[in-house]
Amino acid sequence: MIPTATPAYDELAATYARMHHLGHLYAMASWDRAALMPPAGNEARTAALAEMSALLHRMRTDPALGERVARAHQEPLDDLQRANLREIRRDWHAATALPESLVQRREIAASRCEHAWRTLRPANDWAGFLGPFREVVALAREEAALLAEQSGLCRYDALMDRFEPGMTSATVDRLFGDLRQWLPALIDRVVAKQAAEPVVEPRGPFPVDAQKRLGERVMRLLGFDFAAGRLDVSAHPFCGGVPEDVRMTTRYDEREFLSALMGTIHETGHGRYEQNLPRGWLGQPVSLARSAAIHESQSLAFEMQLAGHPGFVARLAPLLADVFGAQPAFEPERLLRLLTRVRRGLIRVDADEVTYPAHVIVRYGIERALIEGEIEPEDIPALWDAGMAELLGVDTRGNFRDGPLQDVHWAEGLFGYFPCYTLGAMYAAQWFAAMRAAMPDLDARIGAGDLTPVFDWLREHIWTQASRWTTDELARRASGQVLDPAHFRAHLESRYL
Amino acid sequence: MIPTATPAYDELAATYARMHHLGHLYAMASWDRAALMPPAGNEARTAALAEMSALLHRMRTDPALGERVARAHQEPLDDLQRANLREIRRDWHAATALPESLVQRREIAASRCEHAWRTLRPANDWAGFLGPFREVVALAREEAALLAEQSGLCRYDALMDRFEPGMTSATVDRLFGDLRQWLPALIDRVVAKQAAEPVVEPRGPFPVDAQKRLGERVMRLLGFDFAAGRLDVSAHPFCGGVPEDVRMTTRYDEREFLSALMGTIHETGHGRYEQNLPRGWLGQPVSLARSAAIHESQSLAFEMQLAGHPGFVARLAPLLADVFGAQPAFEPERLLRLLTRVRRGLIRVDADEVTYPAHVIVRYGIERALIEGEIEPEDIPALWDAGMAELLGVDTRGNFRDGPLQDVHWAEGLFGYFPCYTLGAMYAAQWFAAMRAAMPDLDARIGAGDLTPVFDWLREHIWTQASRWTTDELARRASGQVLDPAHFRAHLESRYL
Repeated sequence: MIPTATPAYDELAATYARMHHLGHLYAMASWDRAALMPPAGNEARTAALAEMSALLHRMRTDPALGERVARAHQEPLDDLQRANLREIRRDWHAATALPESLVQRREIAASRCEHAWRTLRPANDWAGFLGPFREVVALAREEAALLAEQSGLCRYDALMDRFEPGMTSATVDRLFGDLRQWLPALIDRVVAKQAAEPVVEPRGPFPVDAQKRLGERVMRLLGFDFAAGRLDVSAHPFCGGVPEDVRMTTRYDEREFLSALMGTIHETGHGRYEQNLPRGWLGQPVSLARSAAIHESQSLAFEMQLAGHPGFVARLAPLLADVFGAQPAFEPERLLRLLTRVRRGLIRVDADEVTYPAHVIVRYGIERALIEGEIEPEDIPALWDAGMAELLGVDTRGNFRDGPLQDVHWAEGLFGYFPCYTLGAMYAAQWFAAMRAAMPDLDARIGAGDLTPVFDWLREHIWTQASRWTTDELARRASGQVLDPAHFRAHLESRYL
Repeated sequence: MIPTATPAYDELAATYARMHHLGHLYAMASWDRAALMPPAGNEARTAALAEMSALLHRMRTDPALGERVARAHQEPLDDLQRANLREIRRDWHAATALPESLVQRREIAASRCEHAWRTLRPANDWAGFLGPFREVVALAREEAALLAEQSGLCRYDALMDRFEPGMTSATVDRLFGDLRQWLPALIDRVVAKQAAEPVVEPRGPFPVDAQKRLGERVMRLLGFDFAAGRLDVSAHPFCGGVPEDVRMTTRYDEREFLSALMGTIHETGHGRYEQNLPRGWLGQPVSLARSAAIHESQSLAFEMQLAGHPGFVARLAPLLADVFGAQPAFEPERLLRLLTRVRRGLIRVDADEVTYPAHVIVRYGIERALIEGEIEPEDIPALWDAGMAELLGVDTRGNFRDGPLQDVHWAEGLFGYFPCYTLGAMYAAQWFAAMRAAMPDLDARIGAGDLTPVFDWLREHIWTQASRWTTDELARRASGQVLDPAHFRAHLESRYL
């Protein structure tokens, strides 16, 4: 090796480049499992992924890595290298905080609980779920305690920090506290207003082939690069693969096309973020997407901000008529009404952008208290019913299937992720406010069918910045301020009142 | 670890199980690259595969492995473990025989030559090909010398041994020497006989969707397990993936369906071999397919022995009529004529089973002399022209495109593989002779549409035996004798005269 002024940093960078290459194979095999793999291949695939997972874990927890991080701090690094070192340090700390045995027990408990959930949810069997779920909660608390000890954060914050570095429950409490003051009244007003504006429901069936063509055309309209990605089908839609080759999935139902279409638009937001991460830094942690909330801010910028905009709807309408045949529901004004319809519902993933935060606030309050030990798993249904009644005015008593059993997150031990959805919606509103401030003619241009100013702004301010800055710094550089929930409120009031 | 009586063997087995898991990810990513990957993903994929390739190479060449092989020889192993140790030793020797630098130079030269070949072949540019090809030959000779030194084989045999362990050029000379005595006269007689039996050509177009349905139905007829495999599309058809999840590919041309169909039948033979390798030993070298010739004997058992059998054709005919619509060419007798038509052609991959060996004999003579240093690359065209004139009676002068440039094998440095195609055809004939000896009603049963006796015999005698025995021992146990070319001759004479 040629001697350099930054030998420790260079060794770290080489190790992370190797992990990036090996992680590529893991990502592709995971995507393939969800999208293409025949059922009998599962056992071998699971073993192959576990082998790679163990290998990557050994690489990430190598004690030599910790020493190199310490030495690299003394080296003459430039700003970008220093940002990369910050992210490497974060990754190394997260990987080494937990003993291998806890990681394994957690994975087994989550896998068992998730497997049980698949049948217990349709059976509405909350009591049956409690057994495997208690184990998941116990191990999550154990993990949270270890991470909290290392980081100095409180337990829930230590879990949330894995998805949203720098975010604390004190901040979430403030943001969501504000939200719960005005959201129920806003929902009331919007629902009352829309009651006088009936929607025309599209008439099906909507053949899968036509839906697939529609999805691909909308992805092109949204700038997805099909030379560096694909759209396939899986039971649970997601955006996988690697930045150089993004593998999006969706699922189709011939009775209605909106959920596949909106899901595809949502995942395209994730996909474009990944496709536009800075090529020159790929392989290094600084090249990764900033955080879960920033990622969701991209999918929601596409699915909510853009897809509910009259200018986008005007471009969507002829595509619908083209693939399905013309019908009254596809006229732009009617379509816009359909896409911005607000309904109080039980299911988070089906919720519109106005009611969605209510679902998140209920989950956040419950999971925070659960991890901090203030409540136990058996307390969840009563808290759920109370929260849903207060925020959405719906009765969820006894309906566990469409209540606390509806999401897979808790079964899998994914505590600390739910807030990111609504933080993402808030960030998305803030990005559009910043765009409008910078480009007063933005709505006129979108209205004329030109989406490029939106993509150009996101590329410059979010996508290509990756993890170069902390989240607060990213927000300041992009929009002049850290997260301010006023933009989200202003957006909802402007669009729906 | 619990102490056992075979600690060295157990460590070896654990290492190979790990390599099997990691190799799974390599195999899937390679298949994906050929079948699905969008073009811009190539650079990242190449880097990911190279990283894994280097990792597996380090694992295979670990000096500790060699010591464990030596110690394991002293341990109380059962027969299966001993067979596995034999294969592990072979693998370790093959991996350690070559210095890393040679492996890298060879890969670079092959990649450069293959890349040049893609444009030089259509341009019919033999002189241009000679430049990069000389480098490939020089490195192949270097490799052959090192492998020969280690194994005590002659140089060409040392290369062939990578694909066909135990086979020597002395044996191939004897087998092919016999063949070239009677093959040209047989071709003359068959062509003359068939001249009086005109074929009815099928009339297209043949839509891709219909061809795909046909391929899948024929694969089902041939027993392919779609719960443990898939059929997709790639530029060059192959059978990839892993035994637990076989990924076959084909390609379609709407102007004619026979090449996709016959290719699919061929790859299904490979695929069923892989799908029926012994599950209990998977991950160990003893569980791998025996050799290239034995693998080709399975694809050719399907594509030649079975697909040219009147009983199979009778089952195929209604499928064709069903997917494409009925037409005169699809009547069983006419279809059989079409599928057994013998034509003197220039292209190996398009050849029928009668003329195919002539293509192989020409290549074998040239590549053996090339590796042994008896000729130089510039001598190839004259030898090619002479061989093709002698064996097939065709004039190939000046036509390099459809002459020595037609195959990618030499450009990629794959010397020693060509004989395996014809050895495989000979083995396939020998398997069917053994089946007929064991089951005198075999042809009647196939004639009645029942293919199971064939599959049952292959499963019992070939597929589930994997690499438990040497190739000669496998042949003896399956058919009572080592490879005897008389069965191939008898098969051709019986079917075509």
